[in-house]
Amino acid sequence: MTASELNLEIRKKRSFLCVGLDVDMARIPAHLHKEANPVFAFNRAIIDATADLAIAYKPNLAFYEAMGTDGMKQLEMTVDYIRSKDPNLFIIADAKRGDIGNTAEQYARAFFLHFDFDAITLSPYMGRDSIEPFLQFPGKWAIVLALTSNPGASDFQLLNVDQDQPLYEHVLMQAVSWGTVDNLMFVVGATRSDHFTSIRRIAPEHFLLVPGIGAQGGSMEMVMEHGKSSRGGLLINNSRGILYAGNGIDFAEKAREAAQRMLTGFAL
Amino acid sequence: MTASELNLEIRKKRSFLCVGLDVDMARIPAHLHKEANPVFAFNRAIIDATADLAIAYKPNLAFYEAMGTDGMKQLEMTVDYIRSKDPNLFIIADAKRGDIGNTAEQYARAFFLHFDFDAITLSPYMGRDSIEPFLQFPGKWAIVLALTSNPGASDFQLLNVDQDQPLYEHVLMQAVSWGTVDNLMFVVGATRSDHFTSIRRIAPEHFLLVPGIGAQGGSMEMVMEHGKSSRGGLLINNSRGILYAGNGIDFAEKAREAAQRMLTGFAL
Repeated sequence: MTASELNLEIRKKRSFLCVGLDVDMARIPAHLHKEANPVFAFNRAIIDATADLAIAYKPNLAFYEAMGTDGMKQLEMTVDYIRSKDPNLFIIADAKRGDIGNTAEQYARAFFLHFDFDAITLSPYMGRDSIEPFLQFPGKWAIVLALTSNPGASDFQLLNVDQDQPLYEHVLMQAVSWGTVDNLMFVVGATRSDHFTSIRRIAPEHFLLVPGIGAQGGSMEMVMEHGKSSRGGLLINNSRGILYAGNGIDFAEKAREAAQRMLTGFAL
Repeated sequence: MTASELNLEIRKKRSFLCVGLDVDMARIPAHLHKEANPVFAFNRAIIDATADLAIAYKPNLAFYEAMGTDGMKQLEMTVDYIRSKDPNLFIIADAKRGDIGNTAEQYARAFFLHFDFDAITLSPYMGRDSIEPFLQFPGKWAIVLALTSNPGASDFQLLNVDQDQPLYEHVLMQAVSWGTVDNLMFVVGATRSDHFTSIRRIAPEHFLLVPGIGAQGGSMEMVMEHGKSSRGGLLINNSRGILYAGNGIDFAEKAREAAQRMLTGFAL
């Protein structure tokens, strides 16, 4: 998928919404526990209820890995289900990988070939050769952590390096030269909206994947006001606020209502 | 496992060896391809041939994830086999994870509870709250990337931050306050032996996990000379140099010979 195609979906649906599938067995409605594949059954209902509102889905690998091979099977089923539901939905592996070249190649094969993800989140700490193998797959994307939404972001990402620029700006400045607006995005937390202006100076047209709305306290309005590119360029994630909006028989309806609230105020 | 117990194994076996299980189906001997679980069959033979020489084994998750659920099953079999072979062998998940607190907890559960790993490698980019959940499991370890062996390490890890200290030293200085010598190690590449002295100034007694010997060009002698703590404190990894020392029927014997060569020059 290209950036233009993704921006077209955003205009068509009037939505920046990415639904994070951080599915925790302990939090899914009780009536699903008797299903053979409860996490998949939960995801399928969430996807059915939100597919016309969402641009992207973002399974968080940790939650599936915690369940071992059974979790990985339900992840495969989930990715296949999204793909069959609507081929224009963008599917992100929230995996935050980052390793040397030959290992990065294996991860790229895992996420882009074994699974049919469109994109994977990556940590930049190991530098260029840990990112580049992901940029060799036509139509696939690397999403590099820049400034994250959690408190620990200030431990290193906001440290000033040479010439008084925070580390995350160096990450952005270097990374933009590794790929294009069609295969490289950045993660910027919604809790960091005071930094969006300087981020857009370095990467004016790159897509930003923005977590941290809802449970983490970021503001949707601030992100839309300061984070957009000229054509859209945002995927705004909400996980727990949608998945666990309800926990009864009507959880999917509640999820849909929560997703609809994320679309109010949309403007391009 | 405590640092003392690990140092005791090192003295008993006169070895710092960690065998990296980065097992690539394309590189395992042809005669194993007909096995039901060829990667596990390969690993079992390597483990049988090296268990009396090695302190630790380090499966690289990427190689197993690239094979999907089938790979994860063979990873489970491998971890269980090492555990049953000798309970004093230390098992590291080379996963380089790093995510916000609630996700980090899921990864910790995945690697420490679902799998029975002793340790997991982690990227520090997201800071303290991405590491701490791994330090809550008695006897389990977080292994934080400090200075890696790949060329891209110079993109960010060697950038000078406030007071002219490279970023990786800031990572070390902060991280040592998050855990203890019994639950926190650091990754330092063997190709960076000129930095070992400053690393040992900041973390004199912490274990260092050292990749980059062999294929990546690091020197075993330099690591042993400059990297040791007063009691040992090193796990020196070799993956491809051992796994693929031979590729015929006698691959396990060749692997043993390569492992034995890693032990020459051992001194404490």
